[in-house]
Amino acid sequence: MAIVLGDDQYGKAETRVVRIYRDTDRHEIRDLNVSTALRGDFTAAYLTGDQSKVLPTDSQKNTCFAFAKERGVGEIEDYALALAGHFTDDIESVTSARVEVDEYRWERVAVDGASHPHTFVRAGHEIRTAAAVIDTEGFVNAQWVVSGVRDLVVLKSTGSQFTGFLRDRYTTLPEATDRILATSLTARWRYAETDVAWGEAFGQVRQILLERFAVVHSRALQQTLWEMGSAVLAARDDVAEIRLSAPNKHHFLADLSPFGLDNPGEVFHADDRPYGLIQCAVVREGAPPAGSAWDAPASFA
Amino acid sequence: MAIVLGDDQYGKAETRVVRIYRDTDRHEIRDLNVSTALRGDFTAAYLTGDQSKVLPTDSQKNTCFAFAKERGVGEIEDYALALAGHFTDDIESVTSARVEVDEYRWERVAVDGASHPHTFVRAGHEIRTAAAVIDTEGFVNAQWVVSGVRDLVVLKSTGSQFTGFLRDRYTTLPEATDRILATSLTARWRYAETDVAWGEAFGQVRQILLERFAVVHSRALQQTLWEMGSAVLAARDDVAEIRLSAPNKHHFLADLSPFGLDNPGEVFHADDRPYGLIQCAVVREGAPPAGSAWDAPASFA
Amino acid sequence: MAIVLGDDQYGKAETRVVRIYRDTDRHEIRDLNVSTALRGDFTAAYLTGDQSKVLPTDSQKNTCFAFAKERGVGEIEDYALALAGHFTDDIESVTSARVEVDEYRWERVAVDGASHPHTFVRAGHEIRTAAAVIDTEGFVNAQWVVSGVRDLVVLKSTGSQFTGFLRDRYTTLPEATDRILATSLTARWRYAETDVAWGEAFGQVRQILLERFAVVHSRALQQTLWEMGSAVLAARDDVAEIRLSAPNKHHFLADLSPFGLDNPGEVFHADDRPYGLIQCAVVREGAPPAGSAWDAPASFA
Amino acid sequence: MAIVLGDDQYGKAETRVVRIYRDTDRHEIRDLNVSTALRGDFTAAYLTGDQSKVLPTDSQKNTCFAFAKERGVGEIEDYALALAGHFTDDIESVTSARVEVDEYRWERVAVDGASHPHTFVRAGHEIRTAAAVIDTEGFVNAQWVVSGVRDLVVLKSTGSQFTGFLRDRYTTLPEATDRILATSLTARWRYAETDVAWGEAFGQVRQILLERFAVVHSRALQQTLWEMGSAVLAARDDVAEIRLSAPNKHHFLADLSPFGLDNPGEVFHADDRPYGLIQCAVVREGAPPAGSAWDAPASFA
Repeated sequence: MAIVLGDDQYGKAETRVVRIYRDTDRHEIRDLNVSTALRGDFTAAYLTGDQSKVLPTDSQKNTCFAFAKERGVGEIEDYALALAGHFTDDIESVTSARVEVDEYRWERVAVDGASHPHTFVRAGHEIRTAAAVIDTEGFVNAQWVVSGVRDLVVLKSTGSQFTGFLRDRYTTLPEATDRILATSLTARWRYAETDVAWGEAFGQVRQILLERFAVVHSRALQQTLWEMGSAVLAARDDVAEIRLSAPNKHHFLADLSPFGLDNPGEVFHADDRPYGLIQCAVVREGAPPAGSAWDAPASFA
Repeated sequence: MAIVLGDDQYGKAETRVVRIYRDTDRHEIRDLNVSTALRGDFTAAYLTGDQSKVLPTDSQKNTCFAFAKERGVGEIEDYALALAGHFTDDIESVTSARVEVDEYRWERVAVDGASHPHTFVRAGHEIRTAAAVIDTEGFVNAQWVVSGVRDLVVLKSTGSQFTGFLRDRYTTLPEATDRILATSLTARWRYAETDVAWGEAFGQVRQILLERFAVVHSRALQQTLWEMGSAVLAARDDVAEIRLSAPNKHHFLADLSPFGLDNPGEVFHADDRPYGLIQCAVVREGAPPAGSAWDAPASFA
Repeated sequence: MAIVLGDDQYGKAETRVVRIYRDTDRHEIRDLNVSTALRGDFTAAYLTGDQSKVLPTDSQKNTCFAFAKERGVGEIEDYALALAGHFTDDIESVTSARVEVDEYRWERVAVDGASHPHTFVRAGHEIRTAAAVIDTEGFVNAQWVVSGVRDLVVLKSTGSQFTGFLRDRYTTLPEATDRILATSLTARWRYAETDVAWGEAFGQVRQILLERFAVVHSRALQQTLWEMGSAVLAARDDVAEIRLSAPNKHHFLADLSPFGLDNPGEVFHADDRPYGLIQCAVVREGAPPAGSAWDAPASFA
Repeated sequence: MAIVLGDDQYGKAETRVVRIYRDTDRHEIRDLNVSTALRGDFTAAYLTGDQSKVLPTDSQKNTCFAFAKERGVGEIEDYALALAGHFTDDIESVTSARVEVDEYRWERVAVDGASHPHTFVRAGHEIRTAAAVIDTEGFVNAQWVVSGVRDLVVLKSTGSQFTGFLRDRYTTLPEATDRILATSLTARWRYAETDVAWGEAFGQVRQILLERFAVVHSRALQQTLWEMGSAVLAARDDVAEIRLSAPNKHHFLADLSPFGLDNPGEVFHADDRPYGLIQCAVVREGAPPAGSAWDAPASFA
């Protein structure tokens, strides 16, 4: 039976683009990590080493920088769409392009109570993400945008229990009626369209995720994730699907009884590994199909 | 349109199991990082918080330790299969289980020229990996094993060129007729069966990957990957598919001309970011379908 | 010539203590990483393996948890002093103790515009640090407190130049009259006393560092650091010394000229390595001597 | 009281120099991470921003590359000495230079049983280090070389106990008569001279460290470190001092008794944090003084 090339993609990963807007004395900063991945008519590059249809990853990097100047960054979803559209439109051999962008947030430094015009301090623990995918093969120039956030670390110090679970012969875990629930959330949501006020939408989704995490009494991290994800879809008709990946960052109650101390949920050891890992998708029935939206560059390995 | 739960899975990630065999004075060590992920009848846990069918991730962790004692580790593929089989066979609500294992390699310390019976030093930069997936839903107890290696860092100081590539308006890269080619390879190969001499197979695949990287004159990393992957499939009928992910770890020639020095491929700057990222699969036509084999726990995010 | 034991210390590093205050429904959270290091009469432990004077590192860890309950955390400087004082006062063999604490910052989640009583989100990129050292050997129970901040990432998009520097035969750098200046600052300042309003002092020092970074026109990172450090000492008589370590996080102007684009300080590549590294101390003449204040646990290696 | 500049240094950190020797078809590779730090007459740079005596860190980077070509790498100690000597000899404002080098090890790929002439695979988990310091201020051109190794991960599965230790009110640790002892060793040794066969010396010291770790029955990590360090000094008269930093990488016995399984030292959980941290120096009485040898660039923060 023949040995053949299967799926393949290539691109430039982690181009660190910093864009300063200095049209006035009050500068703006956008700080990005951009990865491109192209698919198309590249079989010859693999089978014979023929590079005549291969746009170098170095050129892809140059394009990320040039676009940051020529068209500006705007919302990262728009920037990613523009780059993906360029690769599929202008490079004949490319049939599909995925562009992923991480954005790091900066705040202005306050000086004498006023925000400084050109000095910034890195803000926030979390990272805003976006992926745009344009696929011209088997689709009529289909486009997907997946926005997201990662490293969103949240914790509630009560309002969480874990009881009534299945017990097998390897189960030793006691039931917990009041525990810390903490996670470092990765959330990614796929839009049903590409004409969205991205920044506003991001802010709203992030706020819903935080609020639901806060107000839902948790009977398990699974239930909390469902409540978070379904609330996002309920609030925004333009979100077709949301995927949540949540490590259960265990906080173990310190045993202080040998020292004559009680510990009613006050002192915890924050453990590193292992951790529970809960992952789910919440989807809208009848939404447009996901197509290539979720095929991350890392999916091959 | 209704909002519903999509794909979901949960488990315990990164349980660090160390198994010492001490039946004789000459101890053996196996050092593992084990992650489990279960799928099944868990909708109620999400929608109502009902945990009655949920085996705690803590129990999954306990099982990893207990199995290391009860049945031993053996080859990590066997250990992963045994764990996956246990979860699907013995826990009624589980229809599918994925178990991933990383193994860290140790060598014996040499003392007076003889290998020491119970002292070891961590060896090697690379990590051996295995994933076993058992899926009882929609299949008749289908099983897949994916073995692999990651962080396999290789470099050739000649025998690599990059010429004849496509040029667009953003292309500035000069052609290179003799360059360093370096990557940190992640390779994962799916077996067509589960009755394999895993350790021997791993050694053979690793050696083929290294040899092909060495002897193929590279006209692009794409071509090198194809040669590596197809050689593995040609050598082993029991490998159905191999996936390769290879960052192009750029080594830029240092410009020494301002100092009156030539630099004929002798002094390089090893750069961090950005990097090219080339990913491909090489598959055997007519091989058994991949099913759930490649759905990594991280695929959700 | 005899071979003898030189300096030595031991302790428990990176105990992850999380303290929840739940006296009312409005919980408070303190999230710490605590490292202890003891010195004293421990020569026998090294030379003969006699552990009779060695307090286990496990006990030191227990003490970190117990103190978080018994006396609470308060400001991390107080918590560190209390732990250091306990080890030197209560463990006869201990003559010197260093306790280092990192604190991770959390903010309350906002729900319907109101801050939630028990749900928190990790805030900020930077980490507040404190070290308390008590040394009873050769001193009369001397105490030092060193407060600090690390990972304080700041950037100014103008107001920085680098000109007029020394040129040797290996110099190719062009002069820059307007560049990005960015660093990830580590600052640590030693107090001349231990009766300080730690939290308020931390806030003031941090603000001075940020303001001086913003308003000083930089002729080099060296000058900026001096201005930052000396302003701290000028503002607070109780600070004897400040040490600053600042990687020059290079932002290189992207060359867009091949694409017919100018780039007047708008698009940059944020590079990883190498980086300049500028380190200096600013000290008050006549301040109390530093003694053991700066001997970090890592100083041995 | 006046506010003045204290200690200061600056340089270029982490220049990633790769040197290929290709004088014959059988290439050689040297893979280095080089950091430079200069001290001298730089007060004006801080106080007034005057850069006229400041050699840019960019020039220091260029020098690292140029020297790799002009004089080659040789042993990293020689390369570091040459760079340090250049900065102190040729740059008038520099009175002291420290150059630190990490070296990553590569092995040749074997093809058909023969080692390949130009293809290499990263080998080993550990990193060889060297620091050269030349100080012309207050000394008559004093030179120090400190060689070392880090990330040398070793483990013994028996031959280690921890008993008879001090117990206080916070002690709960049971005595252990047979435990795993594991560490990730950082060792750095200062030579009494600079005319040493560096590579051979490195190999001998590394071997002594491993052998002593293996054969000494450990009554505590402290004792093991002493035995390792003192054996190095006993074997080599040219080593004045060795410093060892050893995290106690705890391996906790898994409790399998709930599952009806005994666990006589066979199954362990390798924990991450916290960890014990034992650090000591072993010195030769009457050896030449250490001077600036141990002042690492990181010492400021």
